[in-house]
Amino acid sequence: MRPSSRRNDQLRQVRITRQYTRHAEGSVLIEFGDTKVLCTASVEENVPPFLKGKGKGWVTAEYGMLPRSTNTRMRREAAQGKQSGRTQEIQRLIGRSLRAVVDMAALGERQIVIDCDVIQADGGTRTASITGAFVAMTDAINGLIAAGKLEKSPIREHVAAISVGIYQGKAVLDLDYPEDSDCETDMNVVMTSSGKFVEVQGTAEGVAFTRQEMNALLDLAEQGIKDLISMQQSALAS
Amino acid sequence: MRPSSRRNDQLRQVRITRQYTRHAEGSVLIEFGDTKVLCTASVEENVPPFLKGKGKGWVTAEYGMLPRSTNTRMRREAAQGKQSGRTQEIQRLIGRSLRAVVDMAALGERQIVIDCDVIQADGGTRTASITGAFVAMTDAINGLIAAGKLEKSPIREHVAAISVGIYQGKAVLDLDYPEDSDCETDMNVVMTSSGKFVEVQGTAEGVAFTRQEMNALLDLAEQGIKDLISMQQSALAS
Amino acid sequence: MRPSSRRNDQLRQVRITRQYTRHAEGSVLIEFGDTKVLCTASVEENVPPFLKGKGKGWVTAEYGMLPRSTNTRMRREAAQGKQSGRTQEIQRLIGRSLRAVVDMAALGERQIVIDCDVIQADGGTRTASITGAFVAMTDAINGLIAAGKLEKSPIREHVAAISVGIYQGKAVLDLDYPEDSDCETDMNVVMTSSGKFVEVQGTAEGVAFTRQEMNALLDLAEQGIKDLISMQQSALAS
Amino acid sequence: MRPSSRRNDQLRQVRITRQYTRHAEGSVLIEFGDTKVLCTASVEENVPPFLKGKGKGWVTAEYGMLPRSTNTRMRREAAQGKQSGRTQEIQRLIGRSLRAVVDMAALGERQIVIDCDVIQADGGTRTASITGAFVAMTDAINGLIAAGKLEKSPIREHVAAISVGIYQGKAVLDLDYPEDSDCETDMNVVMTSSGKFVEVQGTAEGVAFTRQEMNALLDLAEQGIKDLISMQQSALAS
Amino acid sequence: MRPSSRRNDQLRQVRITRQYTRHAEGSVLIEFGDTKVLCTASVEENVPPFLKGKGKGWVTAEYGMLPRSTNTRMRREAAQGKQSGRTQEIQRLIGRSLRAVVDMAALGERQIVIDCDVIQADGGTRTASITGAFVAMTDAINGLIAAGKLEKSPIREHVAAISVGIYQGKAVLDLDYPEDSDCETDMNVVMTSSGKFVEVQGTAEGVAFTRQEMNALLDLAEQGIKDLISMQQSALAS
Amino acid sequence: MRPSSRRNDQLRQVRITRQYTRHAEGSVLIEFGDTKVLCTASVEENVPPFLKGKGKGWVTAEYGMLPRSTNTRMRREAAQGKQSGRTQEIQRLIGRSLRAVVDMAALGERQIVIDCDVIQADGGTRTASITGAFVAMTDAINGLIAAGKLEKSPIREHVAAISVGIYQGKAVLDLDYPEDSDCETDMNVVMTSSGKFVEVQGTAEGVAFTRQEMNALLDLAEQGIKDLISMQQSALAS
Repeated sequence: MRPSSRRNDQLRQVRITRQYTRHAEGSVLIEFGDTKVLCTASVEENVPPFLKGKGKGWVTAEYGMLPRSTNTRMRREAAQGKQSGRTQEIQRLIGRSLRAVVDMAALGERQIVIDCDVIQADGGTRTASITGAFVAMTDAINGLIAAGKLEKSPIREHVAAISVGIYQGKAVLDLDYPEDSDCETDMNVVMTSSGKFVEVQGTAEGVAFTRQEMNALLDLAEQGIKDLISMQQSALAS
Repeated sequence: MRPSSRRNDQLRQVRITRQYTRHAEGSVLIEFGDTKVLCTASVEENVPPFLKGKGKGWVTAEYGMLPRSTNTRMRREAAQGKQSGRTQEIQRLIGRSLRAVVDMAALGERQIVIDCDVIQADGGTRTASITGAFVAMTDAINGLIAAGKLEKSPIREHVAAISVGIYQGKAVLDLDYPEDSDCETDMNVVMTSSGKFVEVQGTAEGVAFTRQEMNALLDLAEQGIKDLISMQQSALAS
Repeated sequence: MRPSSRRNDQLRQVRITRQYTRHAEGSVLIEFGDTKVLCTASVEENVPPFLKGKGKGWVTAEYGMLPRSTNTRMRREAAQGKQSGRTQEIQRLIGRSLRAVVDMAALGERQIVIDCDVIQADGGTRTASITGAFVAMTDAINGLIAAGKLEKSPIREHVAAISVGIYQGKAVLDLDYPEDSDCETDMNVVMTSSGKFVEVQGTAEGVAFTRQEMNALLDLAEQGIKDLISMQQSALAS
Repeated sequence: MRPSSRRNDQLRQVRITRQYTRHAEGSVLIEFGDTKVLCTASVEENVPPFLKGKGKGWVTAEYGMLPRSTNTRMRREAAQGKQSGRTQEIQRLIGRSLRAVVDMAALGERQIVIDCDVIQADGGTRTASITGAFVAMTDAINGLIAAGKLEKSPIREHVAAISVGIYQGKAVLDLDYPEDSDCETDMNVVMTSSGKFVEVQGTAEGVAFTRQEMNALLDLAEQGIKDLISMQQSALAS
Repeated sequence: MRPSSRRNDQLRQVRITRQYTRHAEGSVLIEFGDTKVLCTASVEENVPPFLKGKGKGWVTAEYGMLPRSTNTRMRREAAQGKQSGRTQEIQRLIGRSLRAVVDMAALGERQIVIDCDVIQADGGTRTASITGAFVAMTDAINGLIAAGKLEKSPIREHVAAISVGIYQGKAVLDLDYPEDSDCETDMNVVMTSSGKFVEVQGTAEGVAFTRQEMNALLDLAEQGIKDLISMQQSALAS
Repeated sequence: MRPSSRRNDQLRQVRITRQYTRHAEGSVLIEFGDTKVLCTASVEENVPPFLKGKGKGWVTAEYGMLPRSTNTRMRREAAQGKQSGRTQEIQRLIGRSLRAVVDMAALGERQIVIDCDVIQADGGTRTASITGAFVAMTDAINGLIAAGKLEKSPIREHVAAISVGIYQGKAVLDLDYPEDSDCETDMNVVMTSSGKFVEVQGTAEGVAFTRQEMNALLDLAEQGIKDLISMQQSALAS
């Protein structure tokens, strides 16, 4: 029995709220149960130095947790003077995941900067971030089209992410914090709407996992991501 | 005429939402019109080194803006590796303002850490932060009383803050961003429920101000803060 | 009775020594009693990036305390790897105060960099800094005029600063360190020679202050600043 | 055809040289073809603060590249003042991989610090690091046993790592730099001698990958890691 | 002919002013011509961690230049967030030079912290710093004796320093800035009153120097340091 | 008797291995007994900002120690976020020593970046670095000549370095770690093939040294450096 009484293959309740704040070109609050992440997409008419003059765009991401998004207060990274290794790992993952579905030449020499800020954490902040950031990025790009700056969307397909893990010997979908902090194996999976993988990151926390377990986890993840992509589509259609 | 069509002595619509997130001992979303700040209060059973063993408590604050809380994206301070001078100024102001109404001996050797994070900015983030942080701190302290860790509240009285300024030659209350970025004088006033000042910070932006103007500004601020304190009381009563 | 036996409305002995060091375009040692600050003004033929090509100048300031300017040794900020929040607050205040009396278009696309370094501290270092920096800046600008780089001075009027406070229930002028560390309210006032305010920063240290007290403090400050401006004028005339 | 003319399932020539330097408790030079990494294991009779007094040990890792280990000179991280996100990601991966095979209670309250420094890079530095670090850690722990500080080894089984990827549409084992910089998918796999996974990190570089491709990659990795573990065993036996 | 018209073996005018500021246990302004350095000595009743509980004291030094001590403004190290390599080199040299003449066991478990801050620079700031710091340290130690905390002085003998160099083919004593920036060889020599060397640091700036030149430089330095030590003695006697 | 049983004027066994790694334009492993330093020279077709457009080149150096090159593990400077004062001192010394023998105008507007990384330390790492870096730089420059980018070598003569010291009252050549950590005086000498000094840095560690001792040390150093330069020549000839 999962702490939340969910079935092993059951997502938490997911909510996607677009236009959550008013300044950003895309602004989405995504909720996976009690995990709440504000994802904004900012359009900047410049690119990083290594892309100057190459006619291609870029998508990058930054991630942060509010100090009291967690059960006990975390130290503020800005006050510490540096981002933790975990933060850097997550923001690099978000950026790579989004870039995998964008045609950089079609985006043109501009940059989409994604900010994922965790308002409340209950496990799965990185997968919620990717799933919500895709919607924010889509809104920002649709704004460029509406403004006549792009003719058609450089987004090739949807991308979303979910965590799966072995919890008390069973493969489960969408781990919340009590599961995440007590599981044997934790895997984050990023997939596209065509059913292909963009990232698979599985980590044994204590007990190494078998190929069979890995297959069970991937099966769960595939189904969960299909559902998340439907929710992205509904949110964008509304 | 003010850009928002408000009267010169009119506050923006203020909303105070308690228990906005679930982990913090106090968690308040305060809105001054389009300015939205999440204020959390965390109780820590320790004090800074300079107070160790003195039987007194402490209240301190940190402040941050989400990168896209503003009209154009600000660089993330955690990624920059340091907090700006402005950020430090504001968080020091918030801390001093709250400490002014707390009896540190009565609080006991523990610390209340306030985090004010700006979700959306439209002027007045520091005054909204102080006003909301007071409510979050009160909730946290009431939790200590409910848990039997304190017998009675060490909070002596309410404290709230508002900005006033000279905009197009007129004294106005509660400047929003269009006013703030175009005013001659900007003053932040922090007052208690007994009508005394905790902080007065007036700055001429371009044109120095007269004693008469200063008096007009203080009159406006006094009234505004009385109203804010009523709203704090209503929020805490509900 | 004040620790220094001064009358409540009495400044400490003020000395302004121009050309104190030989390299800077303006170099002033200002003494408020035992507080000694070296203020230099450096002319740089460039402006910060946000002003490039706009035909306007800039005035900025940095502040520091020698490690043993104080009673017990302070850690050296350069060795610490960062400036404290207090240092940043003060240097921002000095810069704003001086900019308030300079016509930036008339200054032309160049920058005056003020350095205020405290040689010996006994309270009031920020107000001494502003008062001395004005003289150093004036010398630097007069040098530009003498060199034919400016036709007339972009300085519109004098600016000076003083601290006032409630000490043992009485409003007093120009607090020294024993008063400053033991006062109920501390206010720093920056005014121009036309009697207008540039900055008013009042802080209750423990006990909030009334409107009446604030008025008494401002009265004291106005008289003190008038006297300081006379001393600036004498120093510049000699 | 691979740039190195290797078969798709062929490792580069692997060399493991123990006691490469004389100060460290374990010191191994590992070579995967032209990739050369010096892995040292240092025993410290203390643990990180979060483990103090819990009777358990710890294994942690740091990673670095010499500035000219690469084709064009990289900036020295010590001179930059910070470690890149990539460096932190890799050193966290090395630490987790080794901890997965060590019984921390059996290690006792002491710490093994692994340093992996890349002398020459040609792709696969993180997998060479893990594979070599295991040998260095084993030597350090055997030293503790020889010195009578441990009765038996807390190491439960071997761990090694290899990269696999889709290069020009084919699954290949142990990518060198020309393959790594031009592949569609890159996966790092960490496995134990019992054939279980500790980490699987697959990343699509441009083209997302299918479940079939993933299976082909894992098949290759399993065989490669079995071979690496044999080589670790031979090296430790000699 | 030297730019200053001095003889090749002639020091600049040296002035040593004790009790220059009032807070430090030792406070000396030393002037070598236009070079002016404020040297303070602070007594701290603790030692660095590596000396805790060993019954021995320590002497350490920090060095800084005011931003406009130089002809063109230098960036403030505190604002830069780090001390330059040159600053660190100099402060390490000052510390070593003073430690060479102090009996650390006789000093007891306390620390003398020297701060050398350059008010005005015209070459030779490190040698002036050492020479002045010795006097400040002596005053601080005499204060400990006067206060009954030490029975007798742990200072074994005097130490002072001077620069020598090859300027336009001639060996000269006590280089000022015009000489220093245009010389072939620059050597800093630190000696004790018994005529022994504590430090010799010779650097060819462009043209390497011969053993004969080195001997000529050391001859000049020996005489210069003898004279500086007489001046230290006179200053301490007054 | 020296710990290593060497004669007082005897170098440790010196080995110079060229082309030690494959990416750098010059790559040399230099061994002074158990001290092993990897010296690489990288050619960059740009110069530091202060030399832009002046038609002159530059040679600069960085130095680092692998964390476990030493007997007890040193903290990694990249993880610490800064280079120590000692590291900066050494890398500045290496850079100055090499620049002393290069004609910067003849080098043209390009830069040679030297990296000296200590693989194993046993005293004398800075002198081994200089001696090895000269060979790496020569290889890099010969590569420029071979590629037709330079007509003739801008290197005017050889440069090498050795340490000498007073150990147990005797002048000895090429101190190893047991001698270095227990000597009275330590001197690093950098000389050219024409027998001139580039740097002489003598430091009394506890006991000041006499002019006679200094002369004895310089005599030893001259002979040692002559021998090192022969070895450089042999290595470059092979």
